[in-house]
Amino acid sequence: MAKPTALTGFPEWLPEQRLVEQRLLDQVRRKFELFGFSPLETRAVEPLDVLLKKGASDKEIYVLKRLHAEEAEDAELGLHFDLTVPFARYVSQHRGNLVFPFKRYQIQKVWRGERPQQGRYREFYQADIDVIGDGELPVHFDAEMALLLHEVVSSLPIPKIQLRINNRKVLEGFYRALGLSNIIDVLRSVDKLDKIGEDGVKKALISENGLSEAQADACLALARIRGPGAEAVAQVRALGQTHPLLDEGLNELEAVMGMLAGLPVDAAIADLHIARGLDYYTGTVYEGVLLDHPQLGAVCSGGRYDNLASDDKVKLPGVGVSLGISRLLGLLFGKNALTSSRPTPTVVLISLGSDADRPRAYATAKALRARNIATEVFHAPLKFGKQIRYAERKGIPYVLFLGESQVEVRDIRTGQQVPVELDHWTPPLSDLEVQVLTTAPAGG
Amino acid sequence: MAKPTALTGFPEWLPEQRLVEQRLLDQVRRKFELFGFSPLETRAVEPLDVLLKKGASDKEIYVLKRLHAEEAEDAELGLHFDLTVPFARYVSQHRGNLVFPFKRYQIQKVWRGERPQQGRYREFYQADIDVIGDGELPVHFDAEMALLLHEVVSSLPIPKIQLRINNRKVLEGFYRALGLSNIIDVLRSVDKLDKIGEDGVKKALISENGLSEAQADACLALARIRGPGAEAVAQVRALGQTHPLLDEGLNELEAVMGMLAGLPVDAAIADLHIARGLDYYTGTVYEGVLLDHPQLGAVCSGGRYDNLASDDKVKLPGVGVSLGISRLLGLLFGKNALTSSRPTPTVVLISLGSDADRPRAYATAKALRARNIATEVFHAPLKFGKQIRYAERKGIPYVLFLGESQVEVRDIRTGQQVPVELDHWTPPLSDLEVQVLTTAPAGG
Repeated sequence: MAKPTALTGFPEWLPEQRLVEQRLLDQVRRKFELFGFSPLETRAVEPLDVLLKKGASDKEIYVLKRLHAEEAEDAELGLHFDLTVPFARYVSQHRGNLVFPFKRYQIQKVWRGERPQQGRYREFYQADIDVIGDGELPVHFDAEMALLLHEVVSSLPIPKIQLRINNRKVLEGFYRALGLSNIIDVLRSVDKLDKIGEDGVKKALISENGLSEAQADACLALARIRGPGAEAVAQVRALGQTHPLLDEGLNELEAVMGMLAGLPVDAAIADLHIARGLDYYTGTVYEGVLLDHPQLGAVCSGGRYDNLASDDKVKLPGVGVSLGISRLLGLLFGKNALTSSRPTPTVVLISLGSDADRPRAYATAKALRARNIATEVFHAPLKFGKQIRYAERKGIPYVLFLGESQVEVRDIRTGQQVPVELDHWTPPLSDLEVQVLTTAPAGG
Repeated sequence: MAKPTALTGFPEWLPEQRLVEQRLLDQVRRKFELFGFSPLETRAVEPLDVLLKKGASDKEIYVLKRLHAEEAEDAELGLHFDLTVPFARYVSQHRGNLVFPFKRYQIQKVWRGERPQQGRYREFYQADIDVIGDGELPVHFDAEMALLLHEVVSSLPIPKIQLRINNRKVLEGFYRALGLSNIIDVLRSVDKLDKIGEDGVKKALISENGLSEAQADACLALARIRGPGAEAVAQVRALGQTHPLLDEGLNELEAVMGMLAGLPVDAAIADLHIARGLDYYTGTVYEGVLLDHPQLGAVCSGGRYDNLASDDKVKLPGVGVSLGISRLLGLLFGKNALTSSRPTPTVVLISLGSDADRPRAYATAKALRARNIATEVFHAPLKFGKQIRYAERKGIPYVLFLGESQVEVRDIRTGQQVPVELDHWTPPLSDLEVQVLTTAPAGG
């Protein structure tokens, strides 16, 4: 059997990186709960028709087949490509058991069979918060989700994120004012601005979407507008297009940006080129980029979806944002910008003098663990030098020696070894839990 | 579009159940870390040949295909059916970056396309701990994994679990002493004892595996033996079969059971009918059942695998156990034996008198959250009765009213409303965090 290798697009971290990821996810989760969002987890699979229902046509969905399945035995299932579509399905399914507006967070992996490239994975973590209303969901929720996302990301040890906000109604209203009807196609072309540039988008609008040069130029003029809310809205109005949907969108955008006025400069701007590829968005759309690494693309995204969970009888409008944990970590791990203080949770290694010492070593470990100190017993009565070497290689800060008359603790970093009262000895707080260390400026 | 429905075999919990699951997983994780196990997560997919390499032939593997894939574009991938096979692959792949004996825990979902039935899901959580040595891994690790598992499960709010322990070498040595050679087939037949009974197993051994009636009776005589370690070993010896592998296995089993002698009665017994279906086990095998619900089958399992991560050049023997979180929760949720104190993390709902009060309400919420109190602001200035009703339905224990001259807090359960000093008010600890409530006797 050949030595196993990595699968492109399916990242796996080393234990010290997983420690960082886990602690980051804990922080995110704690923040979400402080805002009153309930945890939720949906199955990894959805019926294919649910996945294809809304805007997934351009996503590379992974379809599942049981290895031993008879033909056409089961409904066709696929792995979810985001957490919004499953959440909308869940809310529609469990409406009778939920209290609205229903606020949930969801931290799970999603799968997309896209061509892997820098920052794009086929399996990755998303951390989502969404709120879905029964019947209606006022636009101030759109602003609240942005505020919450800002508070979460600025509390994490990651570089500064800028939230860029637009409104699909503005885009659609503007395009309709231009006489266009293939709105989703145009949206998707404009959404590629960061990837293929203005010339590329213009070419696509004309040759693929059938726009005239004047229409394409107008779309690009709109896409160039970015800045504080009121100014951006005034610039859109100055372009001279009018349409009821455009007005509605501009009013929403202005209201949302107005509620974000208290955020730090650069934390959130109106950006009329943000479109988002998924076609279930119906109003506000968000995208968050690292200010110092814009080339990485969006590390957060989201928007308002009025129809995703709704059916003919029930309107269940929603809005939410998603934080791309794996993409962020991939970047930061790649730059060694985020590390853990040690690669193991263990604080203390109890050395083993002889096999006869095992019962005492195990009892000591048990007592330390009961006081919340992560403890290992070395597995064999090897020379103490070898046991210390194991602690060094594993980054365990303390080695404990159970002598006949006294107990000694060695700090592996200084080599200092001192007698201790076992019942009262506790490592300093900075050693008790694994710390996440950052060499990049913290987010703000 | 039809109303979405549940998919058989893919359980999804309500938010209040997910709160329980999450807090249970946190406890498990904390215990694993206190024992010095590092967190690890592997990708959900493995190349099919890795999944099929060892004993997965009888598992229903889910194979992935990209919806838009060209024929034969990618290596065939499947979803992992356990966490042991991916872990062994990971260790073999990253051997140079790991410190041995390498101890990790891994809590992830796994997928099996089995026919769903009570307690058997197609998607479910497993919580695994394993240790893999480089070159060798002494048998005392087999006992340590059992001790650790006992300590973890007895700390959880779940019914009592009994660990049943056997050794594959005993079974294989005994079968070889009987002159049998199709060991894995015989193992699998014996493993069905709980499901199909002695008559069923005997029939399978004779008609499917080709044993004589005397051979089948001997296999069943062995499978009937259970009890404390030394007694069970003596009973096996009394059956009169001899084989070097049988002796080796009995010595290991006796050693492991000897190290578990300090556990409570009923916590761990030797049980010679435990075989485990997967063929990668080479020595000790474990199975844990709920003493009060044996019909549910194994809620933990595991064993020693000397060859799973090894190749021609490197020996990487391992041993590990797996806790079936979803199966446990499915049972306990079904009996309403495990509930959360409320269905939301929110402790305080700040009521909204008018839209003009929003800034004050948001600032108050921020201050409470900074003091670790999960807080929501009600979304609209509706009548206070409606806002209180929302808190009641959501199980939020406190509603806060921002009056002009004073702030009042209402306890939703008593209806009592009192003025408070906002800067110092803190709910009692029992309300601050969601509590997991149990109506069944706690495990021990």
